[in-house]
Amino acid sequence: MIYFDNSATTKPYPEALDTFLKVAQNYYANPSSIHRLGSQSEELLKRSRQQAANLLQVSDKDIIFTSGGSEGNNLAIKGIANYYKDRGKHIITTEIEHASSYLACKQLEKEGYEVTYLPVDNEGKISLDQLKQALRKDTILVSIIHVNNEVGTIQPISEVAALLQDKPTTLLHVDHVQGVGKVPLDLSQGNIDLCTISGHKFHGPKGTGLLFVRHGVTLSPLIAGGSQEQNRRAGTENLPGIAAMVKALRITLELKETHSRELKRHKEKLIQGLSSIEGITFHTPKNGSAPHIINISVKGLKAEVLVHALEEKEVYVSTKSACSSKDQQASRILLAMGVSDSDAKQAIRLSLSYQTTAEEVEQFLKIFKTQVEDLRQVMRS
Amino acid sequence: MIYFDNSATTKPYPEALDTFLKVAQNYYANPSSIHRLGSQSEELLKRSRQQAANLLQVSDKDIIFTSGGSEGNNLAIKGIANYYKDRGKHIITTEIEHASSYLACKQLEKEGYEVTYLPVDNEGKISLDQLKQALRKDTILVSIIHVNNEVGTIQPISEVAALLQDKPTTLLHVDHVQGVGKVPLDLSQGNIDLCTISGHKFHGPKGTGLLFVRHGVTLSPLIAGGSQEQNRRAGTENLPGIAAMVKALRITLELKETHSRELKRHKEKLIQGLSSIEGITFHTPKNGSAPHIINISVKGLKAEVLVHALEEKEVYVSTKSACSSKDQQASRILLAMGVSDSDAKQAIRLSLSYQTTAEEVEQFLKIFKTQVEDLRQVMRS
Ligand SMILES: Cc1ncc(COP(=O)(O)O)c(C=O)c1O
Ligand SMILES: Cc1ncc(COP(=O)(O)O)c(C=O)c1O
Repeated sequence: MIYFDNSATTKPYPEALDTFLKVAQNYYANPSSIHRLGSQSEELLKRSRQQAANLLQVSDKDIIFTSGGSEGNNLAIKGIANYYKDRGKHIITTEIEHASSYLACKQLEKEGYEVTYLPVDNEGKISLDQLKQALRKDTILVSIIHVNNEVGTIQPISEVAALLQDKPTTLLHVDHVQGVGKVPLDLSQGNIDLCTISGHKFHGPKGTGLLFVRHGVTLSPLIAGGSQEQNRRAGTENLPGIAAMVKALRITLELKETHSRELKRHKEKLIQGLSSIEGITFHTPKNGSAPHIINISVKGLKAEVLVHALEEKEVYVSTKSACSSKDQQASRILLAMGVSDSDAKQAIRLSLSYQTTAEEVEQFLKIFKTQVEDLRQVMRS
Repeated sequence: MIYFDNSATTKPYPEALDTFLKVAQNYYANPSSIHRLGSQSEELLKRSRQQAANLLQVSDKDIIFTSGGSEGNNLAIKGIANYYKDRGKHIITTEIEHASSYLACKQLEKEGYEVTYLPVDNEGKISLDQLKQALRKDTILVSIIHVNNEVGTIQPISEVAALLQDKPTTLLHVDHVQGVGKVPLDLSQGNIDLCTISGHKFHGPKGTGLLFVRHGVTLSPLIAGGSQEQNRRAGTENLPGIAAMVKALRITLELKETHSRELKRHKEKLIQGLSSIEGITFHTPKNGSAPHIINISVKGLKAEVLVHALEEKEVYVSTKSACSSKDQQASRILLAMGVSDSDAKQAIRLSLSYQTTAEEVEQFLKIFKTQVEDLRQVMRS
């Protein structure tokens, strides 16, 4: 089996599942309970938070554990919008955000906020000049996806941060969900105010994530109630999930050195191999894209047809972003990049992980070529 | 060890953890992915949803999987408030809600909603007359806790529902988090519009829950984004958590017949035993309370002191609700019931589960008496 759908979700590390199980069995008490069992859970929660903070090079006070990337993006965007609404009601984001940021902004528009959606060029990149022009006195938030989940384009986050340096009332939120372990993001410099990550994208458990919120920044909770997460996210903590996610984060960042080089090689191999096939268009830009995502259109073949032809050979790839892959429309991201509707409907995404091997890459290319040729033959006959 | 803090959280059933692990290992693909692995995950998600629906005697379309009870309560209250705001901006709730409902309402007040907090009598019960009087043309939601988490008082939900029968524009939300498996709630009649439950209160995994939303009722998502949960709760589904929660729900409801009788016997035994100790006040009403919660004040002993004295003997009980047990204030619930501030600060909660045995009950009473006597001796000397 070749699983090239890692941007949709990854297979959990066995070590992370081990952690989950041990914590669920041995630290089941509520971290808020004041008896000893509760204190033991609280202690483990603290250690997990500290470890996550160390790995991300931030302070443990700046971490809010969430249920995933969609909650993180909604909490960041709506939480900031609500808390700072007296400062202003203008938000800047891009046309190529993940649905969870995009629709959070759409909800805010209905509530009287103004949102500027920055366009992107044909590589999927925003223009810093356009961002500069869009900035206003009442801009309270700039929210940008670091690595796009469909095409892998990397946005110039440090340049964006630099641009906002002299605008203390405009906060910067980065959706780093696809970047963790693949494309570095420096949170230690203090010029990124909020950052969303999601556990299941780096071999952690589903239903886990965290939102980094820089010290000094406040937000209205999406989930109000108990005083967990410093009153910013109520609910009995999912301690097994948190500990397991932090374990997965540690493994991922430890493997980064060796594995991100490997990933790059895999990607180059794939691009090389795919280039030799007739009628392939690359939507992922050659430069400035993440090492684990390749998005291509295969002329004449509908994406779904190709996905199912590949699955016959136990090769798993996707069409667009998983959470919108069932609607029939062409990808909003590719359209924003100027890809034609018909090309966009022929687009498939290959997404790799640290578990991808050189043999899989080679095998994939063989199977892919055969399946594409076979399908084309069928269509001609 | 005697764990009598089951209202804070329960120990997961081994079967539920087994399910979690198997699903995490074998169904890791994203249910939204269109390839075969994704379809297998989607199939399991559907089956889990159908099973949950069958167990709750509702339609599978009416179930939104969430990350827990706090999210469920916030989604219900804010989601309805936001969606139906053109109908009216008045909400009725009670003074003894869980913090997650209570603070969701407080947030709404800041946004221009009007909230009536129904008082309760000294047994913790609301008055149907007062509810009737509070109802207005613009009342869009009545949100009521079924079983109070600190004292166990049961609210007259069917009478409330009957009262609202001829008010189709006033929806009814019930926080059933403490009731599952302990106090029946009939969702099949169609007169409850929304109902929150949380997995970790019935030996399921933490970070899981569900919100029942009756067909025909719409709400604004708290977490917008992908089209999961019929566009009402975005985010890659926590399939291992969902399947494990449903497993725990099934086990709990299967055990209900035999175990709820047992629980009642345990509770009677405890009340009998505790009654023989001098200076004990029962805050849990004799009639109309859940079989798993007993809240008492022990004259002259601060709650924290007693909790720690008990933990020396490996007996674990709590002060008030876990998520607010670290602040120094007296319980908001007990104060609402007319308990004096000093009595409220002496209140501890014993909460049982299906795993509680008759031996534990007996042992508990012995240890409890000894520890109370010892502490009192120390204080006199
Ligand atoms: C860039 C990006 N942001 C946010 C999300 C949402 O994360 P989650 O599925 O954990 O809610 C995803 C993946 O679904 C993503 O790829
Ligand atoms: C009555 C009640 N409602 C809601 C909640 C919140 O549930 P969770 O901890 O799953 O967020 C709890 C417990 O914490 C509760 O007892």
